[in-house]
Amino acid sequence: MPVTKKAGVLGATGSVGQKFILLLAEHPDFELYKLGASVRSAGKPYAEAVKWRQTATIPESARQLVVVGCKASEFADCDVVFSGLDSDVAGDIEKEFKEFGLVVISNAKNYRREPDVPLVVPLVNSSHLDVVARRVKQARAAGTKPGYIICNSNCSTAGLVVPLGALMARFGDISDVTVTTLQAISGAGFSPGVLGFDILDNVIPYISGEEEKLEWETKKILGSVAEDDSFALRSSMTVSAQCNRVAVSDGHLECVSIKFATTNKPSVEDVKQALRDYICESQTLGCPSAPKQCIYVLDEVDRPQPRLDRNRDNGYAISVGRVREDPVFDFKFIVLSHNTVIGAAGSGILIAETLFKKGLL
Amino acid sequence: MPVTKKAGVLGATGSVGQKFILLLAEHPDFELYKLGASVRSAGKPYAEAVKWRQTATIPESARQLVVVGCKASEFADCDVVFSGLDSDVAGDIEKEFKEFGLVVISNAKNYRREPDVPLVVPLVNSSHLDVVARRVKQARAAGTKPGYIICNSNCSTAGLVVPLGALMARFGDISDVTVTTLQAISGAGFSPGVLGFDILDNVIPYISGEEEKLEWETKKILGSVAEDDSFALRSSMTVSAQCNRVAVSDGHLECVSIKFATTNKPSVEDVKQALRDYICESQTLGCPSAPKQCIYVLDEVDRPQPRLDRNRDNGYAISVGRVREDPVFDFKFIVLSHNTVIGAAGSGILIAETLFKKGLL
Amino acid sequence: MPVTKKAGVLGATGSVGQKFILLLAEHPDFELYKLGASVRSAGKPYAEAVKWRQTATIPESARQLVVVGCKASEFADCDVVFSGLDSDVAGDIEKEFKEFGLVVISNAKNYRREPDVPLVVPLVNSSHLDVVARRVKQARAAGTKPGYIICNSNCSTAGLVVPLGALMARFGDISDVTVTTLQAISGAGFSPGVLGFDILDNVIPYISGEEEKLEWETKKILGSVAEDDSFALRSSMTVSAQCNRVAVSDGHLECVSIKFATTNKPSVEDVKQALRDYICESQTLGCPSAPKQCIYVLDEVDRPQPRLDRNRDNGYAISVGRVREDPVFDFKFIVLSHNTVIGAAGSGILIAETLFKKGLL
Amino acid sequence: MPVTKKAGVLGATGSVGQKFILLLAEHPDFELYKLGASVRSAGKPYAEAVKWRQTATIPESARQLVVVGCKASEFADCDVVFSGLDSDVAGDIEKEFKEFGLVVISNAKNYRREPDVPLVVPLVNSSHLDVVARRVKQARAAGTKPGYIICNSNCSTAGLVVPLGALMARFGDISDVTVTTLQAISGAGFSPGVLGFDILDNVIPYISGEEEKLEWETKKILGSVAEDDSFALRSSMTVSAQCNRVAVSDGHLECVSIKFATTNKPSVEDVKQALRDYICESQTLGCPSAPKQCIYVLDEVDRPQPRLDRNRDNGYAISVGRVREDPVFDFKFIVLSHNTVIGAAGSGILIAETLFKKGLL
Repeated sequence: MPVTKKAGVLGATGSVGQKFILLLAEHPDFELYKLGASVRSAGKPYAEAVKWRQTATIPESARQLVVVGCKASEFADCDVVFSGLDSDVAGDIEKEFKEFGLVVISNAKNYRREPDVPLVVPLVNSSHLDVVARRVKQARAAGTKPGYIICNSNCSTAGLVVPLGALMARFGDISDVTVTTLQAISGAGFSPGVLGFDILDNVIPYISGEEEKLEWETKKILGSVAEDDSFALRSSMTVSAQCNRVAVSDGHLECVSIKFATTNKPSVEDVKQALRDYICESQTLGCPSAPKQCIYVLDEVDRPQPRLDRNRDNGYAISVGRVREDPVFDFKFIVLSHNTVIGAAGSGILIAETLFKKGLL
Repeated sequence: MPVTKKAGVLGATGSVGQKFILLLAEHPDFELYKLGASVRSAGKPYAEAVKWRQTATIPESARQLVVVGCKASEFADCDVVFSGLDSDVAGDIEKEFKEFGLVVISNAKNYRREPDVPLVVPLVNSSHLDVVARRVKQARAAGTKPGYIICNSNCSTAGLVVPLGALMARFGDISDVTVTTLQAISGAGFSPGVLGFDILDNVIPYISGEEEKLEWETKKILGSVAEDDSFALRSSMTVSAQCNRVAVSDGHLECVSIKFATTNKPSVEDVKQALRDYICESQTLGCPSAPKQCIYVLDEVDRPQPRLDRNRDNGYAISVGRVREDPVFDFKFIVLSHNTVIGAAGSGILIAETLFKKGLL
Repeated sequence: MPVTKKAGVLGATGSVGQKFILLLAEHPDFELYKLGASVRSAGKPYAEAVKWRQTATIPESARQLVVVGCKASEFADCDVVFSGLDSDVAGDIEKEFKEFGLVVISNAKNYRREPDVPLVVPLVNSSHLDVVARRVKQARAAGTKPGYIICNSNCSTAGLVVPLGALMARFGDISDVTVTTLQAISGAGFSPGVLGFDILDNVIPYISGEEEKLEWETKKILGSVAEDDSFALRSSMTVSAQCNRVAVSDGHLECVSIKFATTNKPSVEDVKQALRDYICESQTLGCPSAPKQCIYVLDEVDRPQPRLDRNRDNGYAISVGRVREDPVFDFKFIVLSHNTVIGAAGSGILIAETLFKKGLL
Repeated sequence: MPVTKKAGVLGATGSVGQKFILLLAEHPDFELYKLGASVRSAGKPYAEAVKWRQTATIPESARQLVVVGCKASEFADCDVVFSGLDSDVAGDIEKEFKEFGLVVISNAKNYRREPDVPLVVPLVNSSHLDVVARRVKQARAAGTKPGYIICNSNCSTAGLVVPLGALMARFGDISDVTVTTLQAISGAGFSPGVLGFDILDNVIPYISGEEEKLEWETKKILGSVAEDDSFALRSSMTVSAQCNRVAVSDGHLECVSIKFATTNKPSVEDVKQALRDYICESQTLGCPSAPKQCIYVLDEVDRPQPRLDRNRDNGYAISVGRVREDPVFDFKFIVLSHNTVIGAAGSGILIAETLFKKGLL
């Protein structure tokens, strides 16, 4: 009989929370156990509290769960808590949960820059979780509960770092990255989200804080762990981002140009092969949500496209297309990632699966 | 009493042709005189021949004009002929018109690379028309009709070169340009155009031939005229383009990064001021369609946007926003241009107005 | 020198308020004098207080006006006050304004059902304003200020009643009306409005309260004024409505089936002619915003369409198309109206112009 | 070991053809055996011949199949041929196939009105297939091949007739039906299909031939089989349709009003219960694609919605919502059906499964 872990979800009625619930509903390792939301929702069965906006119907295992407030004591029995909280409340709540001894996997931006908090895109830098492993071991030895927070990245960062990481693993440092994003509206959540009147027949060429996140998070995720278990940014890499919101429901498309540090440039075919060959730890560990293929490299001239390719491997895989030489840099290509799966809730799930496989939950 | 010139339109039922007709309908200098289309349409009143797709109604001056075939003899009385023909037929037809002694202003790509054909974005390089002026003078002296072709640029090129030209005029050479476009579907025309099923909830990250045009045309337009009246490409500039089609009806948005050749970098405020100060010849000549302001520099953090800004100065002005420093290059900013006005038909009209003001029609 | 009246706008930062400001900005009869909004906005110049979402830029006459709170005393000098308030606050505020002696033309639903408040679509039942005329005369005779409220209709009602009124004027009573609407998202305002994620690739087949309004308001607008100046519903008419929200920015399309009370049925051509012949009082009075033609009857098989036809006569005209026999009722046809012009702010402006022409302001 | 039948697909590269291929790819009863398309495609592997537009990738079983021309002799070994041909070519080809002795299940409109051709929506009138059963029996007795054509209905008809049929089965005749449709763009196919420029920010209130089909087919499908095996229209029912194209990829929404012939009106709850109770023959026969539930009756006030509900039971189920009394008729409600599954290819598959279960293939 399989052992399952009790999972809580914070911000359960929001955009990311709904996705967490969908992904956990029939999960082999996790049991949907507690749903937390605002005071307005607390006390109601989930099906009444939520304005459900997913194409799949509300899972039966969530429908009748009574929503509770976001108090750590309510989640005391949870083995892991997934946070889809908005950043304006995530700071205090996640801190309380951590201090209570709980494991929080957060989609909020609040603690991403903390020097002792891993910022993890599980297809790329699950090795950063080793820092947590050491802390858990110490806590267990001391007989205490090792409360900790792990952050998943911003949605647009997740798509970018996977091919960058794959290429660096094969060809060494990348010195310069220019990226222009075409981001889906689900990335803005539902409250307030992007107004239909603003995005119909339009592009909004600005997303608050997004470019800074993309330029900075990339360097932490692709950075290294220092001897003292702090995270060192990859300072040899410069990233420049321009972010746009487009009329797409799900799926962030990114147009990327890169320059390698090496003067011994690979060929276009080398680059494609390196992306295709790339394997990540969640695959080798046999995590149930790990994609069959981390990176699909498409040869069709006009792919990937959000509507056609966002759901590859249930949204856990990255698609890359149009790999070609760049007259200014070395190479340019496009990346598509599902912003609410591998770019948000799904990344959290895969982090939890990795922790579980490593015996850290 | 004002003298007006007789204008013909080739490809009158297509996307660009419809726009030519709208722009010519109440024009002070030009009279809508001949409409040419395919054999299928010839012989019908325009209102019957066309599947009209514009928000303004069919102009009265076009409604009853009987469409003719695209034969030069039919257009013998025209002082200027605007071509909105598809490239698969434009080559032969425009050549016939030119050899017949007619002035053709073409939106087709066929002759843009010819060494003796000016490729003109009238807000930037109307000086290239001087080559034509010399040829017209010779022909008139010889008593012959100086048939010639002038091409306007590709729609995405038009938006890019205006701020580049303005900045080069103030700060000297730009060595590197990276541009990612988010292009409107009207740019693909109507036959076949972009299918609704393909673009709804989607981005198509590829436009056939577009990146090559953007990378190459920019260098001809911003290049110089040699002593022998041939056009010299600006070889000191390298351009890298990534082109996308998005669910926008009109208005191309472009995310641009640039690097100046000079080591004496201007400030962000210098760049904005140079763009705001920029004046073009169609303004000083008093061309009726010239924009009041060539380049609007917007200070709002999320502008320009296609729906809100594409119609500035009736679509003849360029909007620039989000001018800021670029960690990889020197500066990045976004450009919005109306792809069927200054990016296509309107550019042709402004070229014709310039020729008219200079006595070359 | 023309006399202009001082105009105030309540709810000036909202969807309807922005439209009022655009329509008043260069109005020959009215001067933009006071802008009222929530406490959050009060004290700021309008350009700072508003998140402007119109394609035209903020009018200069509004840009620097300092927004005030919605207190009657602040608007004491106004000859007319246009209210674009949300219904949750409109009730108290409009009442206070009326009791203060001000003339309020309201887009809110709160007082539409009041027996002494005219509910007016100015292309149809401006005769209902006679009730106000009598009250104004009495007040002026008594030397008091005749504060009163006039409501314009719900946006989807405005489009429907114009052709119904025109046909009843020619052919007598209509006994049955079935209408299915396809309504634009601007009709839902901006706060919260319709979420992009909810409407992209979707239809929302429900608009809260809309069907009741459409079924009820139609009978008041097409009803009569009783001897005691109360409004009598047209009880001989039954209306059934189904309302949908579609991915259109502006322009409500309505599919209508009607049955005349008479057994002497007109022909399709009779119906079309009656619609084309229809003239309303705002036209005969020479109101500056009155449409050139009240109802455009289009003969093209696939028109009217929102994007192509919503702006006829600046959004003050109604378009009707596809008039044909109905196998169940007598006739069916489609109606298009601009929901934020003739369906909201523009209707208020035209009511004010009518009052002004009649000497009631 | 299961016996599978060899299936051919005509028009394999088109919109309906692609869907047939997806639905057949892993089908337990049918094997994808022959793919037919135009001369332009013949001879190429399917993956090269097709411009694939589905979110699922091309099935492996289709990818390498070499496309053939639409000649009956090429399909001689097929037990059943699914036709997704355009109506301009379907007439001749399907006739040739039938005369060759093949079983053709067609999505084209050409033979729907033939008195000896069943027009079948398998959730409603699979009993009409009995006519074929008798003919097959005779042919087999005579030792000949019983070539025949069965048509599935127009896409918008399929959604309408299911609830109508369910209600008639419980409450007897329906005398009047008024329906306004909001139809997805996939219903128009891909060649030419609906242009993005025409449908973005717009509604097209006309679909050629659609209203006639909806008004007529409904009466054949809900009609009876006469003694001589001809199909008698249900003349006691009058249907009036208004059809619109909206910016939705898949899923037709229909706003329906109905009047029962009986004076003994059911209640709203009766109507909902009758819809929920409805069971069709494909369910009782155990057809693999039969929906778990024929009609889902949703109680949420704003459902069904195309994006959220079109894929219920893989697109084979119908969703009904907003069942309420109608002030003009008896009841009104909305219906959602997946236009390319139960409204087109899926209907064909379910017809074939029914034939197979009945031993008629």
